[in-house]
Amino acid sequence: MNPTTDLLRGTVQIHSRGELEKKLARGTPLRVKLGVDPTAPDIHLGHAVPLRKLRQFQDLGHQVVLIIGSFTAQIGDPSGRNATRPPLTAEEVKENARSFQEQAFLVLDRDRTEVVHNGDWFEQMTYAQVLQLNSRVTMGQMLQREDFKKRIEEGREIRLHEVQYPILQGWDSVIVRADVEIGGTDQLFNLLVGRELQKAEGQEPQVVMTMPLLEGLDGNRKMSKSYDNYVGLTEEPPEMFAKLMSIPDALMPRYFELVLQQDVPAGFHPRDAKLALAHDTVAFYHSQAAAAAARDTWIQRNSGRDLSVGAPDFTIGQPHDLIAVISRAYAEIFSQQRTNSEIRRLIQGGSIQLDGEKINDPHATPAWADGQLLKLDKRRAVMIRLP
Amino acid sequence: MNPTTDLLRGTVQIHSRGELEKKLARGTPLRVKLGVDPTAPDIHLGHAVPLRKLRQFQDLGHQVVLIIGSFTAQIGDPSGRNATRPPLTAEEVKENARSFQEQAFLVLDRDRTEVVHNGDWFEQMTYAQVLQLNSRVTMGQMLQREDFKKRIEEGREIRLHEVQYPILQGWDSVIVRADVEIGGTDQLFNLLVGRELQKAEGQEPQVVMTMPLLEGLDGNRKMSKSYDNYVGLTEEPPEMFAKLMSIPDALMPRYFELVLQQDVPAGFHPRDAKLALAHDTVAFYHSQAAAAAARDTWIQRNSGRDLSVGAPDFTIGQPHDLIAVISRAYAEIFSQQRTNSEIRRLIQGGSIQLDGEKINDPHATPAWADGQLLKLDKRRAVMIRLP
Repeated sequence: MNPTTDLLRGTVQIHSRGELEKKLARGTPLRVKLGVDPTAPDIHLGHAVPLRKLRQFQDLGHQVVLIIGSFTAQIGDPSGRNATRPPLTAEEVKENARSFQEQAFLVLDRDRTEVVHNGDWFEQMTYAQVLQLNSRVTMGQMLQREDFKKRIEEGREIRLHEVQYPILQGWDSVIVRADVEIGGTDQLFNLLVGRELQKAEGQEPQVVMTMPLLEGLDGNRKMSKSYDNYVGLTEEPPEMFAKLMSIPDALMPRYFELVLQQDVPAGFHPRDAKLALAHDTVAFYHSQAAAAAARDTWIQRNSGRDLSVGAPDFTIGQPHDLIAVISRAYAEIFSQQRTNSEIRRLIQGGSIQLDGEKINDPHATPAWADGQLLKLDKRRAVMIRLP
Repeated sequence: MNPTTDLLRGTVQIHSRGELEKKLARGTPLRVKLGVDPTAPDIHLGHAVPLRKLRQFQDLGHQVVLIIGSFTAQIGDPSGRNATRPPLTAEEVKENARSFQEQAFLVLDRDRTEVVHNGDWFEQMTYAQVLQLNSRVTMGQMLQREDFKKRIEEGREIRLHEVQYPILQGWDSVIVRADVEIGGTDQLFNLLVGRELQKAEGQEPQVVMTMPLLEGLDGNRKMSKSYDNYVGLTEEPPEMFAKLMSIPDALMPRYFELVLQQDVPAGFHPRDAKLALAHDTVAFYHSQAAAAAARDTWIQRNSGRDLSVGAPDFTIGQPHDLIAVISRAYAEIFSQQRTNSEIRRLIQGGSIQLDGEKINDPHATPAWADGQLLKLDKRRAVMIRLP
């Protein structure tokens, strides 16, 4: 595969492909920047999305520059309005940064990663230099930012320090002489400010690539510690496995793409695909053995509650009246012989369910379909397969 | 006169009169702030307008705080687009500031003036503090500024450092704990930012008073060194006198009000009023003797060119045909006897002018009016007065 095409996989926007090709064509390692705010000690799978992209660059021989936003983390929101962004002490920032880095190295190649703290340049910066920096950006450019535009339209306020954050992030790119910057789609504007500041400083502007924001376990909001819908990279295998098994089926293609950089396995039942997702993710962040053990643990724990998981396939064949199907399923799958009258009692007693619907009539003729879950009793179920 | 009313004389806006009255009523000296940018060494009469207002406060026992904008002067316009605002060296700023202060003391009472340089606090300010400061102001407030609004409407750009200047000026008010700030009408917005920042810091907001901008000698644009339409406070008496004599008549009420804090003298001919303006201004900035000497010099230098200046009054009486009036004017004012035929030759030779219009017909019957200038010859003219 063309290396550029490969690098573009999973990205949402790029400015610009032509520039990336030109930079790659030089054959020298590119400096690929990611800025992270060490506001919390743990990384989750959402953070890992751009990290996996960085790793892809590293595997092609490029250099990653990880910028720890120690400066902004220590400031928090100086207006004091944003309770979710409290200022951190220097000690907390240092500890979060250390922990963040260690976790980032679960994805990144340590030998091709340079870690810098932006407090190193911003803490020294004078007001005169701030003015100089601000003179490079126009109000018009700033008001282009989507969330600023929206807030102005809605009559909500923007405090002037907020306008400084894109400038701070952009100046980081100048300082580290970034060739490429990776960020979430919500970062696009800030990444583009970096291009402008680099141009103003006579540098070649960085290529900007955005990655999608991974939805959290609820399937609605982006993965975030504050929504408690996240999977931490260092969570123990059983917890990581269980959390991944809880995502809505509809999210699976996203998770395969963004967490595993794979397509959903073709022809898999959703249950099996999810087991594969959970398994492979645990294997990536822990090990194959840990993944297998986590899978077993999960199935064991959940077999009582959700018989669909790990339910064995049962091809119904002929005849397929209800009693005959149940009888053969017991015999072939669970090696249990049941008389027809025993089966009738089970049916009349409400034990039998097809895809969660009770069947109380022994003479019912279900419209059998592939993938239906036929529950036989409290501990046994089979997955219907058509012949 | 009520001291508040007196202090409001000549001001354009005040926020608010009630607050000023409350502050004055406390009976303790107020801290009255004026910020000046030491971009040039000389002060002109335009700068003196707010200085005269400060002096009025001093004469009531209040304290003036003169803020030398050493910080901003050293930065200039960091975008480099504004050639009229080049950055100054620390040495130039120091020299300009020294010279500015000396000149300000031509108006101010040195004993009740505190001079501070804002570089003292802004040069030390960190980016973290800048962000803190910026968090106190909203984008919406900033976009209220008239010139910003206009530029946005006209699609012209605003660079982000420009947004910092009102904040800088406002922070000065917090640092010096200003009770009142005086500025030109073009400063209104910046002065109001000072109120906001003071409130955010738990200070009582300053009262804001704006003074009109004095028009320059051309009568069109505001007085400014860059338009070369100014009168410097330290110009030599003859130059100062001559410049003031060159203003358009229509400007006189403004100059009396803003330069001398007087009304135009009632019943004066414009020429005499202008002589009084020039005289009293020179007397204020130099001395009575210097003013008298400057007046003499000016009349002497200009008598050949402009006989209207210092032209003696001549009440025409009866008869008032042209020849009789000229004859009596020579005799009574200049003690010169002219025969009627001599006068006819003067008329026919084009020597006689009424308000600048030649009269060539000895039998002309002018419509005499008070204040007309009757020129007799190259060196003599009289001001017509009706009996």
